[in-house]
Amino acid sequence: MSALKQIKFDEKGLIPAISQDFKTGEILMFAWMNQESLKLTIKKQQAVYYSRSRQKIWFKGEESGHIQHIKEIFTDCDNDVILLKIEQIGGISCHTGRISCFFQQLDKKNWKIITNMIKNPRDIYG
Amino acid sequence: MSALKQIKFDEKGLIPAISQDFKTGEILMFAWMNQESLKLTIKKQQAVYYSRSRQKIWFKGEESGHIQHIKEIFTDCDNDVILLKIEQIGGISCHTGRISCFFQQLDKKNWKIITNMIKNPRDIYG
Repeated sequence: MSALKQIKFDEKGLIPAISQDFKTGEILMFAWMNQESLKLTIKKQQAVYYSRSRQKIWFKGEESGHIQHIKEIFTDCDNDVILLKIEQIGGISCHTGRISCFFQQLDKKNWKIITNMIKNPRDIYG
Repeated sequence: MSALKQIKFDEKGLIPAISQDFKTGEILMFAWMNQESLKLTIKKQQAVYYSRSRQKIWFKGEESGHIQHIKEIFTDCDNDVILLKIEQIGGISCHTGRISCFFQQLDKKNWKIITNMIKNPRDIYG
């Protein structure tokens, strides 16, 4: 796939990937991809990451159903970060049951949880 | 600084940091921070990164004047990514002279440049 030639993976063969809601602009997740997962993302037009903890390809939504449909794919000036503009199925991207993973905001000296769970993870993965 | 205790830096002592325009929601940059740069970011309320290539603290805008004033700081569900909502001074975050670093969009098999330079880098850094 010729588009992949330009992309620079790190010494572990990975590249950071940011997912952003294509309508609201909200940043939903940060994850990693390897070459195979980026290829699959482009081919299937849905987000496919690489799970560093499980050390395998991770089809986002494979357990939860919270698939991310690709609207647009970008890379940055150094070709070493991927940005996915996506439609989040189910309106939940985070494994905690929230819209976005970025739900902890710094308030002076502490991180405050600023969004509620939409769904209990037990009901998503249980 | 107690807020830093919760944050997980990687095996190199770094954490990914995304900067996003606080008004438009546009994703501007992806960079890295170490503990010192995150501490400085919070203290000075302007983005301070860690340059992996130059292996030193990087006060964003120190050469270009394109400082990023902090509006809000977030971390994610795993406490291992930082999101900065910022005001971009000069309206240019990218070293190529563009608003955002994410100016290459995948169009079938090729990456197409979709935004123009606002200012020539020679005039920014020259």
